[in-house]
Amino acid sequence: MSEPTTADGSERSTQGAYVTGGEFTRDTNYIEDRVVADVEAVTAAPAEEPSTIGDPRITGLTEGAQAWPMEPGRYRLVAARACPWAHRAIIIRRLLGLEDAISLATPGPVHDARSWTFDLTEEGWDPVLGTARLQENYFARFPDYPRGITVPALVDVPTGEVVTNNYPQLTFDFSTQWRGHHRKGAPDLVPQELVDDMLPVIKRIFTEINNGVYRAGFAGSQEAYEEAYGRLFAAMDWAEERLSKRRYLMGEHVTEADVRLFTTLVRFDPVYHGHFKCNRQRLAEFPHLWAYARDLFQTPGFGDTVDFDQIKEHYYVVHEDVNPTQIVPKGPDLECWLAPHGRDVLGGSPFGEGTAPGPVSPEERPPGANPLYK
Amino acid sequence: MSEPTTADGSERSTQGAYVTGGEFTRDTNYIEDRVVADVEAVTAAPAEEPSTIGDPRITGLTEGAQAWPMEPGRYRLVAARACPWAHRAIIIRRLLGLEDAISLATPGPVHDARSWTFDLTEEGWDPVLGTARLQENYFARFPDYPRGITVPALVDVPTGEVVTNNYPQLTFDFSTQWRGHHRKGAPDLVPQELVDDMLPVIKRIFTEINNGVYRAGFAGSQEAYEEAYGRLFAAMDWAEERLSKRRYLMGEHVTEADVRLFTTLVRFDPVYHGHFKCNRQRLAEFPHLWAYARDLFQTPGFGDTVDFDQIKEHYYVVHEDVNPTQIVPKGPDLECWLAPHGRDVLGGSPFGEGTAPGPVSPEERPPGANPLYK
Repeated sequence: MSEPTTADGSERSTQGAYVTGGEFTRDTNYIEDRVVADVEAVTAAPAEEPSTIGDPRITGLTEGAQAWPMEPGRYRLVAARACPWAHRAIIIRRLLGLEDAISLATPGPVHDARSWTFDLTEEGWDPVLGTARLQENYFARFPDYPRGITVPALVDVPTGEVVTNNYPQLTFDFSTQWRGHHRKGAPDLVPQELVDDMLPVIKRIFTEINNGVYRAGFAGSQEAYEEAYGRLFAAMDWAEERLSKRRYLMGEHVTEADVRLFTTLVRFDPVYHGHFKCNRQRLAEFPHLWAYARDLFQTPGFGDTVDFDQIKEHYYVVHEDVNPTQIVPKGPDLECWLAPHGRDVLGGSPFGEGTAPGPVSPEERPPGANPLYK
Repeated sequence: MSEPTTADGSERSTQGAYVTGGEFTRDTNYIEDRVVADVEAVTAAPAEEPSTIGDPRITGLTEGAQAWPMEPGRYRLVAARACPWAHRAIIIRRLLGLEDAISLATPGPVHDARSWTFDLTEEGWDPVLGTARLQENYFARFPDYPRGITVPALVDVPTGEVVTNNYPQLTFDFSTQWRGHHRKGAPDLVPQELVDDMLPVIKRIFTEINNGVYRAGFAGSQEAYEEAYGRLFAAMDWAEERLSKRRYLMGEHVTEADVRLFTTLVRFDPVYHGHFKCNRQRLAEFPHLWAYARDLFQTPGFGDTVDFDQIKEHYYVVHEDVNPTQIVPKGPDLECWLAPHGRDVLGGSPFGEGTAPGPVSPEERPPGANPLYK
């Protein structure tokens, strides 16, 4: 919320969002290239419509986009642990066991008005990309790149160019295009028979919850805020009800829909409740949703990717318009994430016929607060 | 936190507070006049030391202060419902049944940088004092009054002059000096045999809790905030423990100590938890303290004086330094204040040998949100 005003009078941020007429609107224009298993087939397929939620079934490219070859070791996922949109990609990469195929760079939680930065490394730059600011990788691709420098971004290591920052499609492509490099026992996060039912769920989670908290927190007027608050909690009530009878959003097993909901839920009480004024109640006051969130947190691949310090620091320091003191709250207590969830009575198993991922490698362990690592 | 910087480099507010060197400090210099039952005796008594918590046992005046005669109908209590320091006086006036002896003026929740204002009336000024801004009554007394225009203030109606804004002593004087005008059945809020034990409790509540939330919320640095947070929650833990075995802070019956704790507790979840970053946990997560707060809320004289809308509007609109958008959160839900408290098992009775006050008169009913009035 701090970049220069653009030509259309909106205010842009490094998160790719702007406020006009009081209501917060997410900029959904991305670099829509794809990394795919079969470049020729995807390039030859009919053009696809852009989508704010992505689609695991698409066979082609949106207009102007390119296909890049799936190639282990070639791409680097730049994903700040703080950012919920990037956090998705970190979880899905880990659930699928793509760590060896796609390396990970984690910018620090606090970016300036123009770019996320690789300031968590001792050197102050990313050791693989050799850049200090992710903006350099965007400019390597498009020297006059006019939009927000967002994460997640997939970078082509040989050229240092950003290949895509189209996060809604990126994680689906991890499931569908990178199948040949999944670990043994990787779960199917987008089961074909569930996709038709899953996409509307994912859409509702995106517009009403993932983005709904931002709509409340960045509202430019009391009226816009109150409308956003109503929409958000209507959707939270819907999720609460849905999860009262199902172990996971789509039934018995974890799917991509759960990943997309989890990244908002894990930030709800530490950030959105206070910072974004989403305070009808805390997550911990929704019995089913809170047990569901704990269940996921305690499942390998979810909680073990969380860095509560980076999450809090990001929001409370970057959003000076909301929190001018930039002081980061010490609370809430995090131990509660380890409380028994009791969701087993609903049946199901997180990974279906698959298996859980192994422990996080020491170099990818989140450095900040997380009760799993005490 | 928005008035011009003073000569000593501190920043003053209409609430009588300033920030220096990162730590928030409350300005405890007040107009220390007293309204007393026996002006001659009090004037002749030896000088008293100033006190940040007051003392019901004092017989004299602090240096430079004057005594005014207790006289029903002569004084007007100016007390914004939003303000915790003023809220004390509203509750104690009502518990003691001083409504007919001392009238009440309630400024609106949002004051400007210089003064609380009588903007809740249709006319835009107080119908008894004839002033639009409380500052006029301070200036009537001291034309060059240099400090914050604070509430509560007791105003001499014939002259329009502020008699005292020394809130720590004001409520004790309601108990001790105005005894002749208490209602039949008024409780003894400062029982002689408990005073020695009560004053240290009141002191701890003042420095660590009443003021502790402000120390956290107005901290000028991360370090000062974290220290304030630690102090606050250490005291909350102490109160939680103390109230696990006692119905009220001093034992069986309500005393002034309970009033002083209540005004902070009732603001904790709606304001201090988010706005002041007091978020180790909510009040509702302290089992004993929360049941105790509900017990008091449901006791005549306490909850029936609360205006949650004015409380929230005050903090979120006035503190632009903390909440520049001035958007007021819609939550949290307030119905929970009516849940059974179960404190009866601890024995005791709120008013001892006294009785509960009758219902609030229609003209003094808080106009804003309060689940008791639904």
